[in-house]
Amino acid sequence: MTDSIQLLGISNAIVDVLAHVDEEFLGDIGAELGSMTLIDQNRAHEIYNQMGPATEMSGGSVANTVAGFANLGGATAYIGKVRDDQLGRIFNHDMKSLGVDIRLPKAADGAPTARSHVLITADGQRTMQTYLGACLELGLADISDETVGAPKAILLEGYVWDIAEGPALARKAIEIAHRNGTTVALSLSDSFCVERHRDSFVEFVRDGVDIVIADEDEVSALVETGDFDDTLAALDDFDNLFAITRSAKGSVIVYGDEKIVQPAAGVSSEQIVDTTGAGDAYCAGFLFGWANDLPLSHCAQYGTYCATKVIQQLGGRIEPGLLDDFEVR
Amino acid sequence: MTDSIQLLGISNAIVDVLAHVDEEFLGDIGAELGSMTLIDQNRAHEIYNQMGPATEMSGGSVANTVAGFANLGGATAYIGKVRDDQLGRIFNHDMKSLGVDIRLPKAADGAPTARSHVLITADGQRTMQTYLGACLELGLADISDETVGAPKAILLEGYVWDIAEGPALARKAIEIAHRNGTTVALSLSDSFCVERHRDSFVEFVRDGVDIVIADEDEVSALVETGDFDDTLAALDDFDNLFAITRSAKGSVIVYGDEKIVQPAAGVSSEQIVDTTGAGDAYCAGFLFGWANDLPLSHCAQYGTYCATKVIQQLGGRIEPGLLDDFEVR
Repeated sequence: MTDSIQLLGISNAIVDVLAHVDEEFLGDIGAELGSMTLIDQNRAHEIYNQMGPATEMSGGSVANTVAGFANLGGATAYIGKVRDDQLGRIFNHDMKSLGVDIRLPKAADGAPTARSHVLITADGQRTMQTYLGACLELGLADISDETVGAPKAILLEGYVWDIAEGPALARKAIEIAHRNGTTVALSLSDSFCVERHRDSFVEFVRDGVDIVIADEDEVSALVETGDFDDTLAALDDFDNLFAITRSAKGSVIVYGDEKIVQPAAGVSSEQIVDTTGAGDAYCAGFLFGWANDLPLSHCAQYGTYCATKVIQQLGGRIEPGLLDDFEVR
Repeated sequence: MTDSIQLLGISNAIVDVLAHVDEEFLGDIGAELGSMTLIDQNRAHEIYNQMGPATEMSGGSVANTVAGFANLGGATAYIGKVRDDQLGRIFNHDMKSLGVDIRLPKAADGAPTARSHVLITADGQRTMQTYLGACLELGLADISDETVGAPKAILLEGYVWDIAEGPALARKAIEIAHRNGTTVALSLSDSFCVERHRDSFVEFVRDGVDIVIADEDEVSALVETGDFDDTLAALDDFDNLFAITRSAKGSVIVYGDEKIVQPAAGVSSEQIVDTTGAGDAYCAGFLFGWANDLPLSHCAQYGTYCATKVIQQLGGRIEPGLLDDFEVR
């Protein structure tokens, strides 16, 4: 029997530090355009010292999804590690202000709250240099019957595997979840992350994870295929529910013999302001439909609608009540 | 003989905490739409706890002007008090990254770095609830021959008078300035601030301040007049250089018998994105022209051009090289 929480996120709690840079800057720091690189504290200081004036806002992929899910009207909770410092207080404030139930106390000592230096180039692409700080100290002890509870679903992110105890705490969370009838969803984060942890991801997807939410490249990296038809064929071998986003090609839901193709909404390139957070927003919309027991085709429409709205605004988070006036077809 | 710095700002070093709210929220916290209210730490916590997710960025009126002046290509320095905490490091980083020479070390203890809760309503207006924190600890000891140096101009803001030692440190800065041939400019901050400190402002403007930069309401509050003609008449009695901004009516420069009327650029209401920082940007452009020994009519054109650009973008800070292609008429 699950409790009143519909979605519990377990992920890296990160404050984004956003600044505009030119491509030369990326060359100078040796960053590949559009990539996400994990960096240590010294490197974080180095890069920050070279960066121009920045804007700070709460981020993190699954944290964004949980925030979006809360703004859609869902009941949410969150497990992520921040230090009791100003950035940690900012992160917790922003989540709590949306009604998200924060399950861990802020750490009194240890590494500072994580930050991701988000370097935005003139083409609108984002290159991320992420210092995980306090996130790396998330551990097995933080995952318990008390902190996990019995939500309708938990959502893990691939980036959790970048934490030393990540795979172990994911396994523990899954065990608690399945004891309580909680569904387990996994967002694959990014294709480089899938490359880093492929074997472990495959093992978890075969045993433990119920729903996989990812973009086409991430799923293709998971099953090591070249084109989308091959990817779909490879998924025959899995009995999970897959929600696969494909940018302008929409999304495809695969679940056993069922396959739902959801076209993207027709958004012209002039209408696209910022594609950041489109995947997180899709995930929020899809899971919100799922948590409300809607048919998968409706869940896909919710996901698409949320992603479509988010790319037409600055910043990756879903505004309150976005789905209030939306009617599924 | 002045040194290589063209503009030194002395002001409240503040990080803005921006969030969208509805007018009901303003009613609930008892804030008047469009006002700036000084609050204490407890009240700051209360309001923050009630606010939705926020974005953090360096702010402060004269700090914005100094940042803008630096982005125009000017040599700048800054005196303002932050604590050695994450927000203080963010503030200093953002200024230093523009090449601003930060003159004070971060305070190792005392109140935390100041923040202004900037509550943005659907009409685009900003209501500010400001906790001055570390700013209140700026004192006489921070103003010395070493920290002030011998810039071409210093720029004080009216808000400095909200600090206990504000008037005294302003007087000390002016004495150092005048000993070195440095010109003294004062931005009047806001008309409520002028109401709070009118007598002292009048005294300083009559004795010490060379240039007054302010909007029409602030100057009218200073000289206690009702309409703009009366205000202009009252200024006959002062020998300062006044640069007075009048929103859509442009600006007027008054200096002795000289009066320059600078019309605003024709910006349609649809083109206006966010009027925040227009006054700070005008101030940066005007002083940049002045510091480069341009005629006052050119300074006014610079100010207008900077303000016009800033209101057509989100956020109040001038982009690098804004005046590079601008040609005075």
